[in-house]
Amino acid sequence: MCGIVGYIGARQAQDVLVSGLSKLEYRGYDSAGVAIQSGGGIEVRKKAGKLANLAGELAAHPLSGTLGIGHTRWATHGLPNDTNAHPHATEDGKIVIIHNGIIENYLSLKAGLQSRGHVFKSETDSEVLAHLIEEKYGQVGSDLYEAVRLALGEVRGAYGIVVTHADHREIVAARTVSPLVLGVGEGELFLASDVPALLAYTRQVVFLHDGDMVVLGDDGFRITDLAGNALQRSIEQIDWDAEAAEKGGYDTYMLKEIYEQPTALTNTLIGRLNDDNGEVNLDINLDPASFKRISIIACGTAYYAGLVGEYLIEQLARIPVEVDVASEYRYREPIVSEETLAIVISQSGETIDTLEALREAKKYGAKTLGVINAKGSSMTRELDDTLYIHAGPEIGVASTKAYTSMVSAMLMLALWLARARGTLDETRARELLHAARELPRLVEEALAPARVENIKRVAEKYAHSRDYLFLGRGVNAPTALEGALKLKEISYIHAEGYAAGEMKHGPIALIDSDLPVVVVATESRLLEKTISNVQEVRARAGKVIALLSDGDTENAQHADDVIYVPRAHEMVSPVVNAVAMQLLAYFTATALGKDVDKPRNLAKSVTVE
Amino acid sequence: MCGIVGYIGARQAQDVLVSGLSKLEYRGYDSAGVAIQSGGGIEVRKKAGKLANLAGELAAHPLSGTLGIGHTRWATHGLPNDTNAHPHATEDGKIVIIHNGIIENYLSLKAGLQSRGHVFKSETDSEVLAHLIEEKYGQVGSDLYEAVRLALGEVRGAYGIVVTHADHREIVAARTVSPLVLGVGEGELFLASDVPALLAYTRQVVFLHDGDMVVLGDDGFRITDLAGNALQRSIEQIDWDAEAAEKGGYDTYMLKEIYEQPTALTNTLIGRLNDDNGEVNLDINLDPASFKRISIIACGTAYYAGLVGEYLIEQLARIPVEVDVASEYRYREPIVSEETLAIVISQSGETIDTLEALREAKKYGAKTLGVINAKGSSMTRELDDTLYIHAGPEIGVASTKAYTSMVSAMLMLALWLARARGTLDETRARELLHAARELPRLVEEALAPARVENIKRVAEKYAHSRDYLFLGRGVNAPTALEGALKLKEISYIHAEGYAAGEMKHGPIALIDSDLPVVVVATESRLLEKTISNVQEVRARAGKVIALLSDGDTENAQHADDVIYVPRAHEMVSPVVNAVAMQLLAYFTATALGKDVDKPRNLAKSVTVE
Repeated sequence: MCGIVGYIGARQAQDVLVSGLSKLEYRGYDSAGVAIQSGGGIEVRKKAGKLANLAGELAAHPLSGTLGIGHTRWATHGLPNDTNAHPHATEDGKIVIIHNGIIENYLSLKAGLQSRGHVFKSETDSEVLAHLIEEKYGQVGSDLYEAVRLALGEVRGAYGIVVTHADHREIVAARTVSPLVLGVGEGELFLASDVPALLAYTRQVVFLHDGDMVVLGDDGFRITDLAGNALQRSIEQIDWDAEAAEKGGYDTYMLKEIYEQPTALTNTLIGRLNDDNGEVNLDINLDPASFKRISIIACGTAYYAGLVGEYLIEQLARIPVEVDVASEYRYREPIVSEETLAIVISQSGETIDTLEALREAKKYGAKTLGVINAKGSSMTRELDDTLYIHAGPEIGVASTKAYTSMVSAMLMLALWLARARGTLDETRARELLHAARELPRLVEEALAPARVENIKRVAEKYAHSRDYLFLGRGVNAPTALEGALKLKEISYIHAEGYAAGEMKHGPIALIDSDLPVVVVATESRLLEKTISNVQEVRARAGKVIALLSDGDTENAQHADDVIYVPRAHEMVSPVVNAVAMQLLAYFTATALGKDVDKPRNLAKSVTVE
Repeated sequence: MCGIVGYIGARQAQDVLVSGLSKLEYRGYDSAGVAIQSGGGIEVRKKAGKLANLAGELAAHPLSGTLGIGHTRWATHGLPNDTNAHPHATEDGKIVIIHNGIIENYLSLKAGLQSRGHVFKSETDSEVLAHLIEEKYGQVGSDLYEAVRLALGEVRGAYGIVVTHADHREIVAARTVSPLVLGVGEGELFLASDVPALLAYTRQVVFLHDGDMVVLGDDGFRITDLAGNALQRSIEQIDWDAEAAEKGGYDTYMLKEIYEQPTALTNTLIGRLNDDNGEVNLDINLDPASFKRISIIACGTAYYAGLVGEYLIEQLARIPVEVDVASEYRYREPIVSEETLAIVISQSGETIDTLEALREAKKYGAKTLGVINAKGSSMTRELDDTLYIHAGPEIGVASTKAYTSMVSAMLMLALWLARARGTLDETRARELLHAARELPRLVEEALAPARVENIKRVAEKYAHSRDYLFLGRGVNAPTALEGALKLKEISYIHAEGYAAGEMKHGPIALIDSDLPVVVVATESRLLEKTISNVQEVRARAGKVIALLSDGDTENAQHADDVIYVPRAHEMVSPVVNAVAMQLLAYFTATALGKDVDKPRNLAKSVTVE
């Protein structure tokens, strides 16, 4: 998650860039930088810390020029210092680029470039792009667009990229996964990661698609695909107000964040899955083979991600895992040794219960690893290492994309541990890597309009229920818990989740014809057992809402309502299934007229005990 | 739990004994026996297995005589074979006794008797009583009453005892903990463990108190205390029908079983707590120092007892414990080694999920221990060893006395492990033993009429609530879960339990002025933290029902309603607090007119998946 802004026109670029970046600062604020064409060259100015640092310097020593690109960064690779800040320039300073995302094959690209004489200043994957474009630029007779296009042809990964060259009054940009919006003004053009950066200047925008390239010049813009074929993209009129713009046109942050999940998941997974050898590259500074026991500590939604993690780690890596609610962990004198890995999970990295539990684990000698979204947060400063989930800022109080990204991160941790400990062979590892790689696509599919409409219909049908049960088994038992929590948080309906097999040991007494029971019954080894539990509900006149895998018409007959989800490997299905749960909660809450972004009594980041 | 019957009068004793025992068979049916005075001697007839075995033999070869005692046994010490069956006779066959309960100091008594020439036939503690009475009988000039009284003066433990002597036409009986009821007929007298055994003959009864002795003769009865002072006990007229009689005069089995808890707990603890050296005597055939990890497996209420156990074992014995719902455990390929102790908890010993989970644990090589109520149940035949809780038959579907007995058993297991592993010094062990020993008294106090009335008032005040939250921390977090389960099971109100510190991470959204929140806030290290959570509820207009320790008037001011419970050591408080939870659920359900003994949809022993 970073923010990009670009400008070409008659105004002073510096003003447009700073103003635009200020609207994107929610996307990250480790460092900021701008590059502006002036006097036949390009001047780069960058600064660690918040945008205000850079803005202050630019105010004191302005850069003059009417073409520029700017960036606000949320560090993923490399420290958030001045050097690693964007833009990056080639050695001769002629080509300047800004890159969001991750280049998965940057090490092999870098090796090739070095063998051909290129000298690198930083460890960033982004710098590879600058050199590669420079090389291509020489080969194609100084055509910047063509150089970028050929360079991107060799790249595997996710990117939003903007490029300028001192000798060309143009900006070349392209995107895959990372968002990019073109703003069309009167004799001027804009680029930004998100609409709010543009609204002060224009409401005419083109939403670039994955694989789109665009060239911005004084005479207008042209869009092509990566093969060089011209594309027509319609110009849309934005009539959102500023607040709506921040919500990307969605009614709420929560809905926006639900729809951001394919991107968030891509960012979580990208560069980390190595299909070639069935390994994950997590860059974690701990020895995965050194642990005898794992303790996962978290609160709320993150706790449920931890429960999925427990299942995955125990299954794949065969290490005993215990999951604790942080508020309990911190006061129970936990049993910890130096062979214990304590994993804390937190979106904000600030949750006080989790932070204190982390300190407790450290006190007893545990090695500590965080699964965290917010860079530079308090926990990350105290952890031995952090696996960032890169889900991007989450504004809605009820967690959505952070949850699915956390679960995906736990899957990668399970694979990391399993491979290092030799409990998972390469074939099975590759199968799981493949399943993980599918997740963004599967979640995108889970968000297809017809599916969303169906979930909305179900939600509205049962919105006036007094309470709800959610059932699931195995790796999807936590999905039931998370589904219940989501509904509870934003609709205030008393929903409770249970391991499906446990229902008959108590909660079954609640079942009558007024009680909707959501059963997660997607494809799994345990599907038959779960269907037995469905029958138990039906036999007591309960209303069954079944979450089934596409094509499962047989089990549909046992349900009053069916929510179909895309077929997924059992081990990654909690991610796909969670999306349906989020939508069910969302549409129930909106049907009841609740404020989903700010549910009563709750806070986004709980920094009190 | 065994059944005793005695008779003196004009009828054939055999008929009265067999009829009476048939009404007590619910108390156990491992073996049965009778002893009848006839022709100047006493004939003893006993038989392993159900009463029908003995009754068949007696029908074929009747015993003639009008004074007799009979017994139906639920084996606790010693196999349920013919030899170990009661009655027990001295070597000369003159003194015959039946004993329910446990003699705690029987080993030292036995050593003394042996050194004075007594020869023992069985390993039972009961046989010690026969010899001791025989010895005293010789010392006091053949006064049977005086012999029994002096013998009991040397005994520490629980007992219901009936004694006859071939040379006296009388029965001497006494009780401590184990119940005993005297039935008064026209020219005949009866004794029984419970009223149903008497109803075919008389409705005039005397409920003997702890420490009472009684002598039954042809000319009537007299009651004394153990010091020999005469006592007056009123004769009560029983107007229960047969079914009500089985409920001991209570409206429901559940209420009866709630009130049986002081006795059940005594039976769980007795003979197992060694104050002298801070050890527990659990007679478990496993090496407590050999385990690196403990896995507790259970369902429903027993699962919550397991969660208390986890807390206690980790705190005291410093072994990592994981608790699993059985239906999940059996399908998750658990991580188990020969250094794993798997503890299964089940009232019935038949719960199919738990039984299958046990088999799974064994398959992977775990050592297995059961915490079980029902002797000879399926699990006990497959376990390496069993720690019986001796709570007696539980008929009400919602578990009450089995839960508190299970929790007490888990405390003893924690002490057993801790002492063997050297993680608990003698001083602290004795402190905890002392706290455990207090439990029956504390629970009796928790059942004092004024307290029960108060809970009934609170229950009725909130009986029409839509849902309920239950909160607790630390060792009482499971108490909150159990409180919620109990309410859910019998009132069908959607109650949910949470670790108090976790509330703000989600469920707090449910809180409004219609939501009663039960907070377990009895004395503990974490009381202050819990009170903070109370404030969070109050700040959102939730209704707080606080469970406070006697005398805590300060925190009472934060609550809408207070349920005071007797002060107890934090580590044993879950037992005392559970009683208040049971009563709250009970009176809520009865206020709503629900059938508490047979809640809808539930079964007592779940033998399906």
